Amino acid sequence: MQLNKWIECMEKIAPSVLAEDWDNPGLLIEPENREVRHVLIALDCTPKIISEARWIGADLILTHHPIFFSPVKRILREEPDTAVAWRMLRSGIGLFSVHTNLDRVEGGVNDALAEKLGIMHAVPYGEGIGRIGMLAEPISLYRFAQKTEDLLHTMVSYTGNPESSVQKIAVLGGAGGNAVREAADEGADVYLTGEAKHHEAIAAEVLGLPILVAGHDETERVVLPILKERLQEMTDDVKYSLALSDGGPFRRGTGGIIHDQ
Amino acid sequence: MQLNKWIECMEKIAPSVLAEDWDNPGLLIEPENREVRHVLIALDCTPKIISEARWIGADLILTHHPIFFSPVKRILREEPDTAVAWRMLRSGIGLFSVHTNLDRVEGGVNDALAEKLGIMHAVPYGEGIGRIGMLAEPISLYRFAQKTEDLLHTMVSYTGNPESSVQKIAVLGGAGGNAVREAADEGADVYLTGEAKHHEAIAAEVLGLPILVAGHDETERVVLPILKERLQEMTDDVKYSLALSDGGPFRRGTGGIIHDQ
Amino acid sequence: MQLNKWIECMEKIAPSVLAEDWDNPGLLIEPENREVRHVLIALDCTPKIISEARWIGADLILTHHPIFFSPVKRILREEPDTAVAWRMLRSGIGLFSVHTNLDRVEGGVNDALAEKLGIMHAVPYGEGIGRIGMLAEPISLYRFAQKTEDLLHTMVSYTGNPESSVQKIAVLGGAGGNAVREAADEGADVYLTGEAKHHEAIAAEVLGLPILVAGHDETERVVLPILKERLQEMTDDVKYSLALSDGGPFRRGTGGIIHDQ
Amino acid sequence: MQLNKWIECMEKIAPSVLAEDWDNPGLLIEPENREVRHVLIALDCTPKIISEARWIGADLILTHHPIFFSPVKRILREEPDTAVAWRMLRSGIGLFSVHTNLDRVEGGVNDALAEKLGIMHAVPYGEGIGRIGMLAEPISLYRFAQKTEDLLHTMVSYTGNPESSVQKIAVLGGAGGNAVREAADEGADVYLTGEAKHHEAIAAEVLGLPILVAGHDETERVVLPILKERLQEMTDDVKYSLALSDGGPFRRGTGGIIHDQ
Amino acid sequence: MQLNKWIECMEKIAPSVLAEDWDNPGLLIEPENREVRHVLIALDCTPKIISEARWIGADLILTHHPIFFSPVKRILREEPDTAVAWRMLRSGIGLFSVHTNLDRVEGGVNDALAEKLGIMHAVPYGEGIGRIGMLAEPISLYRFAQKTEDLLHTMVSYTGNPESSVQKIAVLGGAGGNAVREAADEGADVYLTGEAKHHEAIAAEVLGLPILVAGHDETERVVLPILKERLQEMTDDVKYSLALSDGGPFRRGTGGIIHDQ
Amino acid sequence: MQLNKWIECMEKIAPSVLAEDWDNPGLLIEPENREVRHVLIALDCTPKIISEARWIGADLILTHHPIFFSPVKRILREEPDTAVAWRMLRSGIGLFSVHTNLDRVEGGVNDALAEKLGIMHAVPYGEGIGRIGMLAEPISLYRFAQKTEDLLHTMVSYTGNPESSVQKIAVLGGAGGNAVREAADEGADVYLTGEAKHHEAIAAEVLGLPILVAGHDETERVVLPILKERLQEMTDDVKYSLALSDGGPFRRGTGGIIHDQ
Repeated sequence: MQLNKWIECMEKIAPSVLAEDWDNPGLLIEPENREVRHVLIALDCTPKIISEARWIGADLILTHHPIFFSPVKRILREEPDTAVAWRMLRSGIGLFSVHTNLDRVEGGVNDALAEKLGIMHAVPYGEGIGRIGMLAEPISLYRFAQKTEDLLHTMVSYTGNPESSVQKIAVLGGAGGNAVREAADEGADVYLTGEAKHHEAIAAEVLGLPILVAGHDETERVVLPILKERLQEMTDDVKYSLALSDGGPFRRGTGGIIHDQ
Repeated sequence: MQLNKWIECMEKIAPSVLAEDWDNPGLLIEPENREVRHVLIALDCTPKIISEARWIGADLILTHHPIFFSPVKRILREEPDTAVAWRMLRSGIGLFSVHTNLDRVEGGVNDALAEKLGIMHAVPYGEGIGRIGMLAEPISLYRFAQKTEDLLHTMVSYTGNPESSVQKIAVLGGAGGNAVREAADEGADVYLTGEAKHHEAIAAEVLGLPILVAGHDETERVVLPILKERLQEMTDDVKYSLALSDGGPFRRGTGGIIHDQ
Repeated sequence: MQLNKWIECMEKIAPSVLAEDWDNPGLLIEPENREVRHVLIALDCTPKIISEARWIGADLILTHHPIFFSPVKRILREEPDTAVAWRMLRSGIGLFSVHTNLDRVEGGVNDALAEKLGIMHAVPYGEGIGRIGMLAEPISLYRFAQKTEDLLHTMVSYTGNPESSVQKIAVLGGAGGNAVREAADEGADVYLTGEAKHHEAIAAEVLGLPILVAGHDETERVVLPILKERLQEMTDDVKYSLALSDGGPFRRGTGGIIHDQ
Repeated sequence: MQLNKWIECMEKIAPSVLAEDWDNPGLLIEPENREVRHVLIALDCTPKIISEARWIGADLILTHHPIFFSPVKRILREEPDTAVAWRMLRSGIGLFSVHTNLDRVEGGVNDALAEKLGIMHAVPYGEGIGRIGMLAEPISLYRFAQKTEDLLHTMVSYTGNPESSVQKIAVLGGAGGNAVREAADEGADVYLTGEAKHHEAIAAEVLGLPILVAGHDETERVVLPILKERLQEMTDDVKYSLALSDGGPFRRGTGGIIHDQ
Repeated sequence: MQLNKWIECMEKIAPSVLAEDWDNPGLLIEPENREVRHVLIALDCTPKIISEARWIGADLILTHHPIFFSPVKRILREEPDTAVAWRMLRSGIGLFSVHTNLDRVEGGVNDALAEKLGIMHAVPYGEGIGRIGMLAEPISLYRFAQKTEDLLHTMVSYTGNPESSVQKIAVLGGAGGNAVREAADEGADVYLTGEAKHHEAIAAEVLGLPILVAGHDETERVVLPILKERLQEMTDDVKYSLALSDGGPFRRGTGGIIHDQ
Repeated sequence: MQLNKWIECMEKIAPSVLAEDWDNPGLLIEPENREVRHVLIALDCTPKIISEARWIGADLILTHHPIFFSPVKRILREEPDTAVAWRMLRSGIGLFSVHTNLDRVEGGVNDALAEKLGIMHAVPYGEGIGRIGMLAEPISLYRFAQKTEDLLHTMVSYTGNPESSVQKIAVLGGAGGNAVREAADEGADVYLTGEAKHHEAIAAEVLGLPILVAGHDETERVVLPILKERLQEMTDDVKYSLALSDGGPFRRGTGGIIHDQ
């Protein structure tokens, strides 16, 4: 499939006009091949992902997170800001990102996250990125935290009273710690996001809204199979692979506290 | 003790000139009493801490984290930015903060953190906030993560190979995810900090430096008893209490993954 | 009366949307009582006014001039920028200001000023703050200056030929020296304002328009009884008092020139 | 005398390096004649002053206040910002200004003002513009206000208790209302300046320092004869005239309050 | 004719609303005479043009290029930024400029340029300043360059293959090197402009569009007779002269290469 | 030779600290080979130069003009800002630039230019980039223009009287039209530069200094053989080639004016 045609399909799935102003979605590194035959899908473009893409012969890597948030004036091999770009360009594989446009679009990151967590009737709120909806029945905050760990294969941090009952849930995958207020304004019982700073959690206490921090990677990864499926439907002459080496940067916890120091 | 005299002592312990430009340390809310008799020490100034201060009859709350990072143009009771200030002023209790000056000063946050983790010969590096030193002997990254969880009563996230051997450790309590490079430049085997964003962890991979994220609160709290002790030595007519209701905003993990969904 | 209800009434009298962008009107210090029973009305919130408010048991001070034009990062007792706020918060009395919205609104500062000076058929001009209208008959500029001193209990400075005849009068209470041109464009015979800088008066000479400077305080004070009356009509369960200790910061002149040096 | 030579003399009297950053002193309009024979000295360059300069055949007008504080992109006859420049250039007469450099320099505006008011041992304070010194003996604030009116031929406004005793006097001619604090820090009993805004007077109350506002024009005019004398000494082949039509923009007061309205 | 009436006519010919935001068109120096009787038309206002205007007794100089692109704070005789303004004002002759409004307007600079070069059916493109149209028949780029030299009495520099065939021509008189892309987007065969920087020519190579640089002066001068004619039609009581001493700042080439060094 | 070693040599020839703040010199595209064996030297990095570099097997292209003056957020194949970078990275050839550091350094662009033109005793002036010196004897400006065309193989534009005599010559290769004043301040008889805008030439007239515009490319190209020689001396295990396909973007003139249109 021609690259331009493929980009048009992608634009239908996650229109770039939905992205935030500061974002950098779209075609970031143009590939050598003008034909797209095999696309590797991952959250981030890392050296491991590039190796995997070369191994499977991908023409293009499709990621959630863009590169080049800060614009650059040179492309060097070992500089953190440009090392990935250098490798991509040397390998001839292209890079395309769908970021806050995929967060916001119907069927995107946050709809996938709500569905995964059993949140029903989820609708957009605030600036249209997060989703809010209802659990089938109220459960304790502690139990909702446990379920989140189980369903997202993660380890959570949370604020608020573990015994409090929650049913109306606001979710915003990725770094959503700066948007606690919008969730409070909606009357959410708890606000689940991927990443929140200490001082954002402190500020949330004043608003009286428990927040549940479930991992940047873990709250966004849920969209990848859905994205793959939608693309496959629209472009049946292209092959898609979910990256195997894209497990998120962090290991969570050590599985136990040791006492024999 | 006169408030002005007390501030002079505090200035000796953590000179305000050591603070970062963007910081807001010092006397933030002037107390009703010009005499300081009882000081409550905490990481953050929250409604619970104010209640505790009133309960014990404190004249002043001494925190690590300032308020009013963003300047304000009104003081309202329920607004997150000013709710704490409103309560403080209504109660007559003052607020004094030592923040990045306490991070940087000898014997401050990062020296306390290094000592707690058994890092020997720790010295400042980079811009003088972090500390770098050696463990008594090399251990695996996984085991260092376990020890950190145990010693700081926290739950960590970390990157890198768990089997790799680490001995040269860089530490920077609080939100240090944007300073990975300085630690890499020092040749650290691992960089321990309190808070790091997803994309900071991704960037660290290119630098080849494992990072260990141990909690903003947990990596800073270690300084409080030391601060109390130093103040008590210098001002023996003032009483100091470590806050009981200052347990950090987050609960870490749920203590097990449930499978009976 | 609930504070929120009272604010709604105030908003009807002087909608905050009419204020200039740089202004800071509205609830600036939230009071201890959520109920408004007694309001003290003054031009400025000064230590004397706060004492008067405490003496009469007011819940709220309503002023024309806001505080916190420059946002603040600490609240100290003796700092000029925050001394008033500190006292207000310690006393539990709230502060609400109606400033350029009251200047602009129909029946506000400038309509009150025009009426006081016998200017008939006064209508807004320029950006809608000032008013322009006609005296019943033409009089000399000198005589108009005399009448202004008499009616506003002030001492004026003025430019232009004292013998010139004036009938079409533009007024703008407070600091209006930077808006001479708008009055000239309207064809005013004289422009009366509260405060004008030397260089503004020099610039006015080129425009050929006499200006009459009658005191910031004296040109705005006229609105206070009218404001009290309107509020009383709308909120009959609240008591209003005009401040007795709100005489403007300046004494004007010494009443005579002495020669026995 | 060559214009360049004359400028060198002027530079010795009031070095331009002493001016504030925002100021615009020096040669602002270059005259037709390269020879300086007759200079008219005034506070401001107004149409009347230009007429007087033409009448007496001056080559140059020397003023305290510059023109072109805001830079211009066209020179039109009736525009307030450029009307004076247009007339100057059409007449061939040049304009030279000594402003904050003359305020600050030894023997300049503020030394002249202090001397005129009988302030002894006056020295610079703060940023070096104002002067502070002692009256021969303490007198009441009211009496000092009376003396100021008499000595400067002006009408004052003042704050503070008229009965309070003052001896240590800070003076700053022209618009000094934004520098009350520096005078308070020096321990002045009263701060005399030419121009102060309402809100500056309100702020001064918190500092507890009476201010006495004596007219922008009247507090600066005192330097003109001294400036003339110094220039005449240094350049005896040039003639200097003090402007007759330079009486300040304002008439102060109407000389009585009328009651027969 | 009254100056104001004349300006209204000029506004019909080249409405100032068509000018770019950064431009400075209109009445820049107000003349002594309020009556316009004789106007000298030139590309630039230089000392030679002012002399010519004085010689012929013009009231006004009408130029394409404004002065005062950078606003000024003094008017000195020898300073490059103000020397022309000083002379104009001393002579009493006014200055009026029509710049990017004349570039853009129908019948303005670029329509005149297109017509001069035999480009038919020329229409605006891009942001409406340049014109694009067709030659009667395709010719080689080299031959088009020759014709341009001949028709505009200039010496060109050009990029691209001299043998390539061109028929669709984009033109933009003056400094158009930063607008190559708009011409490429229109599918032009060659882009003719007055001035282009080295790096703009390098960038044009990537776009594959030949550019032909024909002189800033030479590509704009063609409009002057047309402007004169239109003005004469509308204002028959005013006399217009095309400047004789307005030959552009540059001599192009030396007419031969010498070898006897 | 190791790339890092080679960069150290280059740094000795043209220290990057000599570059202007806005410049972007140094290693801009890191090559595939860490070993430098063959370097192609050119003024600009264009598609033709990249082809030539691939043809001769160069590891690195060394240019005078950098790329990425404006930082970028994506690397696309056909975008003018990134097309060259994309090709470089795909080819594996690196890019290194020495720009204003080579202009300023002793023995750099401007010393080479002065020597080529027979200017003796050339020394830096102004901000240290340009050079000023003397011809062996005075010649007419016209003859100097002819010699320049001959020696630099270019076609010049110039201002001023062709018959005037010139001997003291200021030169500044490349785009130096904004630095006429510095040359005038040095008392130059003529200022030779590579590129000057129309309005810069107009401004130069007021300064009374003739300028001679000799081509951006042609005034800088003279340094390339000298740079090659210096590098060869310092790094004898590296091969250097002057690019054959680097003839500057422009053809100058058509060699004759045709009349048979």
